[in-house]
Amino acid sequence: MASRSTQILEAAARLIARRGVRGLRVEELAAEAGVSTGLIYYHFKDRTGILRHTLEFINDRAERYTTARDPDAPPPSPREELERTLLLELQDTEEVRENSAAWGELRSSAVFEPALREDLAGATLVWVREVAALLGRVRPTAPATDLTATAERLTALLEGLSMRWLSGGLAADRARTLLLGAIEAELTALGRR
Amino acid sequence: MASRSTQILEAAARLIARRGVRGLRVEELAAEAGVSTGLIYYHFKDRTGILRHTLEFINDRAERYTTARDPDAPPPSPREELERTLLLELQDTEEVRENSAAWGELRSSAVFEPALREDLAGATLVWVREVAALLGRVRPTAPATDLTATAERLTALLEGLSMRWLSGGLAADRARTLLLGAIEAELTALGRR
Repeated sequence: MASRSTQILEAAARLIARRGVRGLRVEELAAEAGVSTGLIYYHFKDRTGILRHTLEFINDRAERYTTARDPDAPPPSPREELERTLLLELQDTEEVRENSAAWGELRSSAVFEPALREDLAGATLVWVREVAALLGRVRPTAPATDLTATAERLTALLEGLSMRWLSGGLAADRARTLLLGAIEAELTALGRR
Repeated sequence: MASRSTQILEAAARLIARRGVRGLRVEELAAEAGVSTGLIYYHFKDRTGILRHTLEFINDRAERYTTARDPDAPPPSPREELERTLLLELQDTEEVRENSAAWGELRSSAVFEPALREDLAGATLVWVREVAALLGRVRPTAPATDLTATAERLTALLEGLSMRWLSGGLAADRARTLLLGAIEAELTALGRR
């Protein structure tokens, strides 16, 4: 992707995380990105196009920071890999905060604006499959339908905890502890089936 | 509470569920409720006052529909009571949809507007305590800290599932099945401690 359009998507993620998707105006986005509104329309066609590409952009970013590993460290066990991938969504850093806030906001705006629903459902499905694959490495004999259901629950819980964290009702530490407890309970349940 | 102010809060919940909290204007609320803007300011002082009282109003409503029981039915077991209380938040009826959408929207708007954070944290705490008490009736020997952590997880999961349901990514049936699976896994974990 050309660097100008990346610059626009970075600005869009920042604005959505700061003030929400519903106040997002193309003029304001142009000012934040330091480009003309014409260039934004040229790359993304309309407001829905901007939101769709921003959704993809924040997904790619989340993919990057949740799968980043120290190349010198010994390879993690499947369980460590699972825990790390999920817990890295609850890091108290500016990048993760911004990304999670933008994701939560795109999700909650879809209650009112149907335009993003299909893209959101697609992105959620990809995420659920990735987590189900990680769960399958920890519990290789669990049925695929159980792995999928567990992945749906753990990702929905992560969204619920993120929302409480970002709206100031829950410390990131506590959110991580709660998530680890759910992983433990769910893996035990998968092991029994 | 006087019936005029209830009428205003019903209209506020309806508008927030339909279009979100961030587009809510007092003039529009007055039109929806069939009252003057002056009366709204008289009862609720300002926009934050309206949002705070609407939060309380939708909490009271949720309390009512999740605890309603058929007086002729035999009393439910503690496990049935727990499941019913949580599952009734995922009913595909207009009242529950509206209430859940308004709750989710107030929660997600708090990421951007700090005014509601304290009220939301308080309401969440009350809810977590209620669910922890129900869990304690199913697992009377479980430590209080475990009951609280489990209640935090189940309510956060319920919020995450509701958001997916209301934004069109998950059928209400599937959301209920997933929630029942989490209750099962969590009760087993509580039983082992």
